[in-house]
Amino acid sequence: MIGVVRALVRRECHSEGVAEESSNPQFGRPFASLRVTAVVPSRLEISGRPRAPETVRGFVYTFFTWRQQGQRRAMSRFTQRLEQASTETKSLVCVGLDPDPTRMPVDSVYEFNQAIVDATAGIVCAYKPNLAFYEALGLPGLEDLHKTIAHIRDSTPGAIIIGDAKRGDIGPSAQAYAKALFQVWGFDAVTINAWGGEDTVTPFLEDETKGVFVWCRGSNPGSADFQDVRITTDDGPMALYRNMALACQQWDTKGNLGLVVGATVPEQLKEIRAVCPNMPFLIPGVGAQGGDLEAAVRLGSDSRGRAALINSSRGIIYASSGRDFAQAAAREAEKLRTSINQVLEADDKGWP
Amino acid sequence: MIGVVRALVRRECHSEGVAEESSNPQFGRPFASLRVTAVVPSRLEISGRPRAPETVRGFVYTFFTWRQQGQRRAMSRFTQRLEQASTETKSLVCVGLDPDPTRMPVDSVYEFNQAIVDATAGIVCAYKPNLAFYEALGLPGLEDLHKTIAHIRDSTPGAIIIGDAKRGDIGPSAQAYAKALFQVWGFDAVTINAWGGEDTVTPFLEDETKGVFVWCRGSNPGSADFQDVRITTDDGPMALYRNMALACQQWDTKGNLGLVVGATVPEQLKEIRAVCPNMPFLIPGVGAQGGDLEAAVRLGSDSRGRAALINSSRGIIYASSGRDFAQAAAREAEKLRTSINQVLEADDKGWP
Repeated sequence: MIGVVRALVRRECHSEGVAEESSNPQFGRPFASLRVTAVVPSRLEISGRPRAPETVRGFVYTFFTWRQQGQRRAMSRFTQRLEQASTETKSLVCVGLDPDPTRMPVDSVYEFNQAIVDATAGIVCAYKPNLAFYEALGLPGLEDLHKTIAHIRDSTPGAIIIGDAKRGDIGPSAQAYAKALFQVWGFDAVTINAWGGEDTVTPFLEDETKGVFVWCRGSNPGSADFQDVRITTDDGPMALYRNMALACQQWDTKGNLGLVVGATVPEQLKEIRAVCPNMPFLIPGVGAQGGDLEAAVRLGSDSRGRAALINSSRGIIYASSGRDFAQAAAREAEKLRTSINQVLEADDKGWP
Repeated sequence: MIGVVRALVRRECHSEGVAEESSNPQFGRPFASLRVTAVVPSRLEISGRPRAPETVRGFVYTFFTWRQQGQRRAMSRFTQRLEQASTETKSLVCVGLDPDPTRMPVDSVYEFNQAIVDATAGIVCAYKPNLAFYEALGLPGLEDLHKTIAHIRDSTPGAIIIGDAKRGDIGPSAQAYAKALFQVWGFDAVTINAWGGEDTVTPFLEDETKGVFVWCRGSNPGSADFQDVRITTDDGPMALYRNMALACQQWDTKGNLGLVVGATVPEQLKEIRAVCPNMPFLIPGVGAQGGDLEAAVRLGSDSRGRAALINSSRGIIYASSGRDFAQAAAREAEKLRTSINQVLEADDKGWP
């Protein structure tokens, strides 16, 4: 039986370690040992509870990474910062800053963003400008983005700034994008597209103070087209998004990789969280896209009710089309924070 | 038998047309009718020659699109412009303008690009700036890109300018990216990432004067990670890149969609070309990446030896690290054009 576990360990951790007997594993907290039992190779149990092979693999990976580091699994400086930002604001809310001149009640993108940021600082833990909206405005739009980033840094330095760029390209181009997003723009984290595979992802991971969210399962209808296809693997059939989540777990040697998973697909969210129990998840799709908030919080956060960013863009920033847009945004952000925290508290995972 | 063809037609063309008997279909030229024979449903023949179901589907699609339009399959104004650019220069060569300050023999990106463009005009049919390299240089880099585009327009107005951006995002963001790339930057064509499915692709297709190359099968090693996975479909198992090519064919209602397929993977190139006999292909990977040029030309072009852009970036623009970089680039571009044309001529597909 231990042979199966050893094989899992070798495969997942590239280590010769063996799983130790007994003790009670708890998600999200360090544990000294892990009891994995292979009743038959295809039927595995953790602490006597039957679990899917992928879940066991997740446990085993986590266990050995933690043990090797003598602490929680690969908590990078990015994930520490993210956790701190959430704890300080008692908030998992991320605000998407997607300026659309046809919907903004003021002319200046920078003034619009500035007002939103000033009104929501302390209520939300992160801001996520989507680069598409700034690029659509040409160089002046990019200048506004630059000023927006500087303003967030000045006015609420603890907040995480995520460049929603969904970039992805082969080696040298991926390096150039990483440089652009982290060094030129100065984002704390970015979203990327892993369609090009490992060598398109790893250039983004080099600096463990920076977070990288791979677009794993989107919130939009079209995400089903390719992300949900059933594929055949050595481990049997599975959906491609699951395969991508497993690959990301292997690539995440510094603990700064996260996943984008939509709130509109709770089943997939649950499945991916089981595969990646500790990764930070960026969860779009609540608000304008109609995702189920309660499910997003419960299924998307880790076992402690952390490591999740619940994003709302249009639902917050366009809450009012009048001059009170910033106050309305703050009200919506506060409402979202409260709703999320009610779910956490109901599960005994509230803020300290 | 005709029922099978009808089913194919209904499925692929959303039309109730029936395949007509006889006549000799020729790739790349209008044909009046098409003889498809289903010996058994899983064994199809075109004009008596056995063909894979996907190939038949491609033929049938092409046939009905052509017939509906009374001319060649959905030749958009973009593909007309592309064909004209190739014919005028007798060239399938595309030059990747990827400025890297550590390799450029001059300081100014704009001067570097300008010299390359001036030296290669008339030898190549297209230029492809990869946005990553400009973004890595901040706003000044983007200003250089702007000036580069303007210079190409002025000095060689027939050339196609492709924004290698590999963008992809959900609906409203995809619209914003399309606006940025086509209206703000003014590219003739772009590369995009279809990971997010149909609603992330279609916003780019609206203007049939603009080309859209979907990243189908990359030239880099990591592209195997997700693009080559075997998936199960109603049509049986197939690689995901093939599934994506089939989807793109369905989405291409205006004839302005193309595919990016690497020269480093001739088998995949051949397979995808069989599925999409007429689409323009952007083919990276010759030159620095070591792809097989002869295979790329033979397998990547359409039946007439057209509808292909063979891209080389580093192999051309960094041919010399001295002050003669532009002349060296012209020599390499000329060498590439000649090598490509020798393959075309050997197959009796040379330029008129």
